[in-house]
Amino acid sequence: MGRTSDARNKILTAAQSLIEVRGYSALGVAEICKAAGVPKGSFYYFFESKEALALAVLDEHWSAQRRDWASALESDQEPLLRLRALFERTEAAQRAGQADCGTVSGCMFGNLTLEMSNQTEAIRERLQQIFDAQVDMVEEVIAEARERGDAAVADPRAAARSVVAQLEGQVLFAKLYNDTAPLEALWQNCLALLGARLPETGPVTA
Amino acid sequence: MGRTSDARNKILTAAQSLIEVRGYSALGVAEICKAAGVPKGSFYYFFESKEALALAVLDEHWSAQRRDWASALESDQEPLLRLRALFERTEAAQRAGQADCGTVSGCMFGNLTLEMSNQTEAIRERLQQIFDAQVDMVEEVIAEARERGDAAVADPRAAARSVVAQLEGQVLFAKLYNDTAPLEALWQNCLALLGARLPETGPVTA
Repeated sequence: MGRTSDARNKILTAAQSLIEVRGYSALGVAEICKAAGVPKGSFYYFFESKEALALAVLDEHWSAQRRDWASALESDQEPLLRLRALFERTEAAQRAGQADCGTVSGCMFGNLTLEMSNQTEAIRERLQQIFDAQVDMVEEVIAEARERGDAAVADPRAAARSVVAQLEGQVLFAKLYNDTAPLEALWQNCLALLGARLPETGPVTA
Repeated sequence: MGRTSDARNKILTAAQSLIEVRGYSALGVAEICKAAGVPKGSFYYFFESKEALALAVLDEHWSAQRRDWASALESDQEPLLRLRALFERTEAAQRAGQADCGTVSGCMFGNLTLEMSNQTEAIRERLQQIFDAQVDMVEEVIAEARERGDAAVADPRAAARSVVAQLEGQVLFAKLYNDTAPLEALWQNCLALLGARLPETGPVTA
């Protein structure tokens, strides 16, 4: 049991790194198995196809990222500062990725959306669920900010989508220029998009 | 001469459609030639590699899109309305693409940035030049708006990058959900990002 789930984890970890760096289409099962150090037979024991593996990678990655988002967005700071914490984490994660592998690899969900969403319906659907969940989380914080009079938005859901869109767009630039500097604009842009007052800035725990 | 440049154009046109729908990595030269209806020998007569073709496709596509952007952004309307015209054209183009092939195919430059920029330096560099040019064009309009007192931004270049980032992010959502509705938010979000007053809206020629 220990051994088989080990092999599954090795495949998942290898696939995640390879997909981050090279995307999905360019990868073959043989290459993934080689990177994972497991025989090709194992692959089909755990995953019925490369697509099934991609779905598992998305789930793993979102499950980790959701915890990270939740710890920024569900803290007891005031709402706008929670959004700032989210941007700081995004910037820190992209900076860490760049230090690790030499290039800003961007957002796996954004990458696969633009590469794959028109090619397999199963992957499109999973990515929709993930972005829906991200927008849900941001919407909740915006609604709270609005209730306190800290944000002037007519439609918290549309505003949340725009905040996530701005994040994806700036991450695209960070990847393109291999430079995390564009991410520094996220906080001010979020305030502008929300018609928000700059909150009293206490110490931030990102 | 007529015949050979015909073959080159057929390859370019076929490659552009295929890249829009399926991305770059998933494509093979044989498939491109088959779609173009030209023998594989012709391909290597015109392009030394698939990468060289991709660069030519990017150039063609940007040359057409730049004309479109210029006719929106260099009109004699007041500056903010020119930005609105740009968003309306973007929306119209994505809607036309969807009507044509059933799915919103998004922005080829954004798609290839997220799929390819970490894989070939030549493509990354070309995409950087294209996005730089887009940001230049938007920056000029924002600077004009600022001079007239219509926009309150400290740094027109950073603001232009944020406007293009918002556009790329919303186009990502349009592609993900195969729905152009997210693009309707671009104009209001642009005004918010620019701290802009809503201009007197005369008739718009998009």
